[in-house]
Amino acid sequence: MRWVRFSQGGRTAYGIVEGERVVEAAGDPFGGYERTGRSHDLRGVKIEVPVVPPTFYCVGLNYAAHIREAAAKVGLPPDLPRTPDVGYRASSALIAHGEPVAIPADATKVQYEGELAVVIGKRAKGLSEAEALGCVLGYSIGNDVSERAWQKSDRTLWRAKNTDTFKPMGPWIETDVVLDRLETRVRVNGVETTRFPTNDMLFGVATYISAITRYITLVPGDIIWMGTDGTSPDLKVGDTVDVEIAGIGVLSNPFVAASSRT
Amino acid sequence: MRWVRFSQGGRTAYGIVEGERVVEAAGDPFGGYERTGRSHDLRGVKIEVPVVPPTFYCVGLNYAAHIREAAAKVGLPPDLPRTPDVGYRASSALIAHGEPVAIPADATKVQYEGELAVVIGKRAKGLSEAEALGCVLGYSIGNDVSERAWQKSDRTLWRAKNTDTFKPMGPWIETDVVLDRLETRVRVNGVETTRFPTNDMLFGVATYISAITRYITLVPGDIIWMGTDGTSPDLKVGDTVDVEIAGIGVLSNPFVAASSRT
Repeated sequence: MRWVRFSQGGRTAYGIVEGERVVEAAGDPFGGYERTGRSHDLRGVKIEVPVVPPTFYCVGLNYAAHIREAAAKVGLPPDLPRTPDVGYRASSALIAHGEPVAIPADATKVQYEGELAVVIGKRAKGLSEAEALGCVLGYSIGNDVSERAWQKSDRTLWRAKNTDTFKPMGPWIETDVVLDRLETRVRVNGVETTRFPTNDMLFGVATYISAITRYITLVPGDIIWMGTDGTSPDLKVGDTVDVEIAGIGVLSNPFVAASSRT
Repeated sequence: MRWVRFSQGGRTAYGIVEGERVVEAAGDPFGGYERTGRSHDLRGVKIEVPVVPPTFYCVGLNYAAHIREAAAKVGLPPDLPRTPDVGYRASSALIAHGEPVAIPADATKVQYEGELAVVIGKRAKGLSEAEALGCVLGYSIGNDVSERAWQKSDRTLWRAKNTDTFKPMGPWIETDVVLDRLETRVRVNGVETTRFPTNDMLFGVATYISAITRYITLVPGDIIWMGTDGTSPDLKVGDTVDVEIAGIGVLSNPFVAASSRT
């Protein structure tokens, strides 16, 4: 099942994507829902961020090639994580499929990171790895847009990762996913620049959920972005980045110049 | 004005503290409110977390003595921040005044950090330092409970700072505050262990708000915890920690042993 959050006629609702149509739901996939008699043309609705998470988890380093390439660029040996230490991103930076990423005037090195986004469906604490996937509602796609100069200069990732609009997510949540069959492909202006097996992670989804819930309660709507592989070219105003995960969909966002005030 | 969020008779509402009474409000301090005819004995209501923030900002290093003492403990020169780089904490860890901090069985070095908590009242982007305090609703108190062994061993602060119940906040939001008059005092089991002028920060509230809103939109209900000074003894099950900021109130929480599942 494919859940989309959308707006039409001033109303925001969840719907189920069926072909080119969206069947509007009363309720939501977290607390319960019913299909309504209303359906819409998918191309005629505004697609929204699939969920605004209570807590937004994000794995920083989870693919060996990404870590080795980043280390080689600064002339250091790769330092592979030995434990699943999750990090955080800010919900304030989320934007939907199709919405523009606004590059601040003083940003000099903006790059994409195409990521699998796990959406939690059930309250969970103390799950074993065998139990872990039982709390997952489904999967979406995230682009963990990053300003590398700020990432290097600042003590934290606050503006490098969480500047307004730097977290595109969508277009929807797919509940029927076989993780090992997923492949991530990123295109800049239609030209493929990155491709990797999505599930080729140092620590997988079940491992992370089990590790997190040893100490922290996950709740419906929480999201976990699983990190990225490979590297990105530097992006510029006018570019469009598509992150495709076969079996889930395509998250596409144009990059524009930020105005000084929002 | 002193805003408390409270529950009574199965209902949660905001109220205005007047002496020993709470005047119940219809609405909230962010979107607008009216006083109702209902009032309650403050001692007869359950005090809740004063706000569940859309985004929870927290300054890691903002007092010179705290940084110098921490550096001396590991035999390194102090590295004072040169720019106001804010970090994040997770709303999932928030608990109210009076609620217990649950120490996991494998935690070995749990400490308090008494902090000023800024509560944002208005949407804000691109504020100068002179404009910055205009978006503040008021101030509360936070205890940035930290597990120092995990803080040292993990790549991120996820469990060291955000384990369930590790973020007590409250008891309320005080809107009438003169920052330079505030003094923070922390007591363990009634004995004072830390005292410092609250506003003796490397970068103040206005500087942080101006820096954040250069890149990120603050929204009503966001909170910024401003860091701490001094050091804490190691806490143990059975301790009670009071964080008092004169002019705001006292945030008091007992420390108990966590159960393995919540």
